[in-house]
Amino acid sequence: MTDDSSRDHVVPGSDEELETADVRGHDFRGDLDLESLLASYETTGFQATHLDEAIDVTERMQEEDAKVYLTLTSNIVSSGLRETVAALVRDGHVDVVITTSGSLTEDVIKTAKPFKMGEWDADEGRLRERGINRLGNIFVPSDRYVWLEEYLYDFFDDFFAEESIRTPTAFARELGETLEDEDSVLKQAADNDVPVYCPALTDAEVGNFLYYYRQRQDTDSDIGIEILDDYEKLIEDGMFADTTGLIAVGGGVPKHHAIMTNLFRGGADYAVYISTGMEGDGSLSGAPPNEAVSWGKIKDETETNYAQVEAEATLVFPLLVASAFYAG
Amino acid sequence: MTDDSSRDHVVPGSDEELETADVRGHDFRGDLDLESLLASYETTGFQATHLDEAIDVTERMQEEDAKVYLTLTSNIVSSGLRETVAALVRDGHVDVVITTSGSLTEDVIKTAKPFKMGEWDADEGRLRERGINRLGNIFVPSDRYVWLEEYLYDFFDDFFAEESIRTPTAFARELGETLEDEDSVLKQAADNDVPVYCPALTDAEVGNFLYYYRQRQDTDSDIGIEILDDYEKLIEDGMFADTTGLIAVGGGVPKHHAIMTNLFRGGADYAVYISTGMEGDGSLSGAPPNEAVSWGKIKDETETNYAQVEAEATLVFPLLVASAFYAG
Amino acid sequence: MTDDSSRDHVVPGSDEELETADVRGHDFRGDLDLESLLASYETTGFQATHLDEAIDVTERMQEEDAKVYLTLTSNIVSSGLRETVAALVRDGHVDVVITTSGSLTEDVIKTAKPFKMGEWDADEGRLRERGINRLGNIFVPSDRYVWLEEYLYDFFDDFFAEESIRTPTAFARELGETLEDEDSVLKQAADNDVPVYCPALTDAEVGNFLYYYRQRQDTDSDIGIEILDDYEKLIEDGMFADTTGLIAVGGGVPKHHAIMTNLFRGGADYAVYISTGMEGDGSLSGAPPNEAVSWGKIKDETETNYAQVEAEATLVFPLLVASAFYAG
Amino acid sequence: MTDDSSRDHVVPGSDEELETADVRGHDFRGDLDLESLLASYETTGFQATHLDEAIDVTERMQEEDAKVYLTLTSNIVSSGLRETVAALVRDGHVDVVITTSGSLTEDVIKTAKPFKMGEWDADEGRLRERGINRLGNIFVPSDRYVWLEEYLYDFFDDFFAEESIRTPTAFARELGETLEDEDSVLKQAADNDVPVYCPALTDAEVGNFLYYYRQRQDTDSDIGIEILDDYEKLIEDGMFADTTGLIAVGGGVPKHHAIMTNLFRGGADYAVYISTGMEGDGSLSGAPPNEAVSWGKIKDETETNYAQVEAEATLVFPLLVASAFYAG
Ligand SMILES: NC(=O)c1ccc[n+]([C@@H]2O[C@H](COP(=O)([O-])OP(=O)(O)OC[C@H]3O[C@@H](n4cnc5c(N)ncnc54)[C@H](O)[C@@H]3O)[C@@H](O)[C@H]2O)c1
Ligand SMILES: NC(=O)c1ccc[n+]([C@@H]2O[C@H](COP(=O)([O-])OP(=O)(O)OC[C@H]3O[C@@H](n4cnc5c(N)ncnc54)[C@H](O)[C@@H]3O)[C@@H](O)[C@H]2O)c1
Repeated sequence: MTDDSSRDHVVPGSDEELETADVRGHDFRGDLDLESLLASYETTGFQATHLDEAIDVTERMQEEDAKVYLTLTSNIVSSGLRETVAALVRDGHVDVVITTSGSLTEDVIKTAKPFKMGEWDADEGRLRERGINRLGNIFVPSDRYVWLEEYLYDFFDDFFAEESIRTPTAFARELGETLEDEDSVLKQAADNDVPVYCPALTDAEVGNFLYYYRQRQDTDSDIGIEILDDYEKLIEDGMFADTTGLIAVGGGVPKHHAIMTNLFRGGADYAVYISTGMEGDGSLSGAPPNEAVSWGKIKDETETNYAQVEAEATLVFPLLVASAFYAG
Repeated sequence: MTDDSSRDHVVPGSDEELETADVRGHDFRGDLDLESLLASYETTGFQATHLDEAIDVTERMQEEDAKVYLTLTSNIVSSGLRETVAALVRDGHVDVVITTSGSLTEDVIKTAKPFKMGEWDADEGRLRERGINRLGNIFVPSDRYVWLEEYLYDFFDDFFAEESIRTPTAFARELGETLEDEDSVLKQAADNDVPVYCPALTDAEVGNFLYYYRQRQDTDSDIGIEILDDYEKLIEDGMFADTTGLIAVGGGVPKHHAIMTNLFRGGADYAVYISTGMEGDGSLSGAPPNEAVSWGKIKDETETNYAQVEAEATLVFPLLVASAFYAG
Repeated sequence: MTDDSSRDHVVPGSDEELETADVRGHDFRGDLDLESLLASYETTGFQATHLDEAIDVTERMQEEDAKVYLTLTSNIVSSGLRETVAALVRDGHVDVVITTSGSLTEDVIKTAKPFKMGEWDADEGRLRERGINRLGNIFVPSDRYVWLEEYLYDFFDDFFAEESIRTPTAFARELGETLEDEDSVLKQAADNDVPVYCPALTDAEVGNFLYYYRQRQDTDSDIGIEILDDYEKLIEDGMFADTTGLIAVGGGVPKHHAIMTNLFRGGADYAVYISTGMEGDGSLSGAPPNEAVSWGKIKDETETNYAQVEAEATLVFPLLVASAFYAG
Repeated sequence: MTDDSSRDHVVPGSDEELETADVRGHDFRGDLDLESLLASYETTGFQATHLDEAIDVTERMQEEDAKVYLTLTSNIVSSGLRETVAALVRDGHVDVVITTSGSLTEDVIKTAKPFKMGEWDADEGRLRERGINRLGNIFVPSDRYVWLEEYLYDFFDDFFAEESIRTPTAFARELGETLEDEDSVLKQAADNDVPVYCPALTDAEVGNFLYYYRQRQDTDSDIGIEILDDYEKLIEDGMFADTTGLIAVGGGVPKHHAIMTNLFRGGADYAVYISTGMEGDGSLSGAPPNEAVSWGKIKDETETNYAQVEAEATLVFPLLVASAFYAG
């Protein structure tokens, strides 16, 4: 090989001038406000650009008055994002909430007693002795669950008095109606007629305390949680909507529930994912929006109608919400 | 600062000789069989050592005749790990299976028609046109779902004939009884009296086809899926067991279902996790075994009774199963 | 097991009230500016709390007038974070820069021709034909490298005229002096006497073009790049500083270079890492700050003097910089 | 929307039968040896399929007698993979090694004193007091470095006696010649004429002890490490090879060094990556093989000539080596 032929490899050259934007970050000489900072993300590249796209897609959901589905894993409610979710529901920005069971009980606890800042590296055996439960860097003293137990037993009495077989959406709504905290997701959902779907309702304290509740002598042991009615409602929620948009914070059952039921209408019109999932494990949680296109769960548009931000949600969801829903 | 004081920083020295094993990898001059290769993982460090620990913990589950819970996300059944799971159930190595809904329908499809190897980077819009659904690097032609639809309608007729409100474990068992494939997880579970828990049963094709099924004129529209009975059974499964062991392949609802119900007995005795989850996102999927100790979901022992391998499951689960259940 | 003993497991209770802050997110009813939004991260949990800690540690670096080391991987300069880094140097917030070789050439190119926004999923063979190089979702047309080649040959003539064996810091400084762009990291570093360390200087276009340059008939083939002098200087940079602080954006050689040379002074006083690395792979890039404590590379303080944010840098570095260096 | 039109969305059907293999895992009823187990990975999906492809590509490197470049990060030598790398060099399977500086010193230490198994969650301040350095779950007592210091000072005397300015490859070779351990990477490389490239040679104990060495009264303070000569050699190593293949274990400078110098020959013919890097951060470490195609660093072939396994290396590198180099 001669140097000349190697140079063709190393510096092939190009004639084409690209029409896309220049890569360029924030100018710290100028204004330093949230809007201008986030505006610079568009041309910063990597995930910053994805956050900008996510904001954009979310704004289009609003412009087109889409029915907005917000899906979230339980740890979102464990964290300070609970108040963000409650705000979105309170202010009419979200039409359907889909989540897992921990969200419901943790939202209720927080109406009475806060979760506390903790640390990742604690002596777990010692925490157990002290009655402190760890959720990442968040601590939940166990008296919260003692309180919750009584609260739920009272609620169960009323809830199952009407009928013995109930649905998760009814559970969430009627429980929400008992709450007073304006920062509660369930209260805001109940007040604003936003259904909260939660198919695996038993998989947290709701299940635990329903177990004990059924053991009681005086309880109708035929009480139960039926999940097919909700699935039908969720399908029809989407089927008859003109336009739908999904915001999936984390993955799991809630994310899949939203995209699967949007399949009935030929796919969601818009979708935004915030996720730490890994695409390469073939999981639903890690699957990027384009995988859902092959299934018809998200529509295939010429103009890009979906975006994914690969990030831990507490870092970016407040930015997305601030910019897409509350700015300007 | 003098050089001398800096040297104390750079080369502080140490008197202590550590008693632990030397770090040392496989000797490729010697035998090259699975057993000797995996044996070297013990002292290879990083995740290899974790895989060795996971094998060890799994072997102790067997020695102590623990009730073994295997939890898996749906994509495990999408992949070739389905046959591994079926083997474990068939050979009596697993006592309880907990999973999500996609596992059930995909297992049934595979009794009749295979999934096909595909690729990650496909043109998604084009796949949609061709009727091909993508699951990571696996393709599922849509005729599989056409076939499944008929199969399930027939099954639903029988299933709901008995009673109109049924449970996910009954669904899995009775559906498994209709299958003939020895590599089917559901068939083996039915044949070997291994319950298959799946609280969010609606969140996949089961839900979709139940929706259409209920729309039919001739159907009892009061059919439903009740999930509280199963949760009670799962709690009692563990509560009265002498010893329990968990093997969680992936995270999500199945993993949490297993640890949460083991809480009733004061924690699982043994636990092995295989996961790609990220601890730092505070998710249940990413939470390592020690987080479950603070909750009492896994026992706190002096001898280590849990292990986690941070890896995509298809790479390591066959190794774990081969070594812990089938070797020697 | 009785229900009572199981209840002790499930709801153990706790007497202790924790003194730490309540977990609580942003209040979207109130002001919506960058400062108040980021202030809420302190009690949002998970990585948001880490970002708050990182801002805090960075502010303490400034208050104590620490010598600040900024380390960065090359892709940071590929992205719009280049302008952020240049701002930090220009405004005197950073005293030492450590990076890899791609940063230098890309910074030079950008003084003349921009990088362009692109996309991840492009047809790579086709891009090669078009002479377009892809860096994540950033495109770099190959004419940039044609331009760079000439620019560097001219520079090499001068640079090696003085002496034939030169150091990476001299390379960066003298190259920076030739540039005019106020957003150039190298120009700002040269103007502000901030050394730019880059031990593996050959590992990018610098190496490629030095290779061709040496092939030329008329060139002194004894030119070379010597790296020991720089290492000595970097050690002494830290050894005689009262206080040092590290900000590591990404991992690799730059991060290690900073912590390793801080070992000579008994460890860095403050450290902030922004990283996507995985701790469980045992890599230097994934190693959290506490691992460096065992080595004496970061000091072990009672008050926490380090923080790590697990995130892609484009998402959080502008927030850290805005809040710690430019706010209020 | 009618049910019929929704059904077209939900069950679109497909006519096409795919020609690719069926997804199918290992049959645990049959033989259980390494070969049959790994053979099943081809059709297991997700990363298992990638490991199978990586084995395949590696076998093709051998069949075509490619010049094989092995690149590795330092922690590979910290772990038990050191012996695997030494075996590959000893048995003539690898022609070029590229690594970072920690590899060299750790390989030397291990010829005299082992690294010890440790744990991730140790009290770091306490470890510092005990003089124990932590590398993931590996412990390195600090007396190793005391020993190394003397060893290197003796070596430096000889090494710089010849010439005062030396290269990293000369350093690695001459240091390797002093060693006796058959499991040493450096010794095997020296014995088998395999060059070991390490551009950032100063970035570890080599740099630290060279620093002190130069401070000594009696030392020629003009000693230095020159890195351009090596880069030239590495380029020409590849330029005149008929066929080249890369095996990149981890990312960073070593991986980039290999692909960048293969650019001079129009790209590597074969490439296998084992990595935990994240594509979405735009890093070189996370960049999949196809990104290198746009740059001309890996050839674009119709038949796939590259593969990437997303996994921590200790889990899969022994399997790849066993299957591609030592089986059958
Ligand atoms: N606080 C809790 O997490 C909690 C409490 C009680 C019960 N549970 C139960 O555990 C089960 C499993 O939990 P889950 O289904 O809610 O999801 P999960 O916590 O298992 O998360 C699923 C996936 O979502 C993504 N994700 C999660 N958190 C994220 C974040 N902060 N940022 C970005 N991506 C993120 C990740 O990819 C993760 O693997 C559920 O049944 C739930 O009710 C959880
Ligand atoms: N094939 C499918 O994945 C599929 C099909 C139909 C329906 N669904 C539905 O989607 C919903 C969500 O799926 P899910 O709850 O089964 O889990 P999931 O796919 O969302 O995975 C949850 C977490 O488990 C871990 N994980 C997943 N795959 C892994 C692997 N290969 N190796 C290591 N760790 C892994 C990851 O941390 C992941 O974030 C469920 O209701 C399910 O029924 C899935």
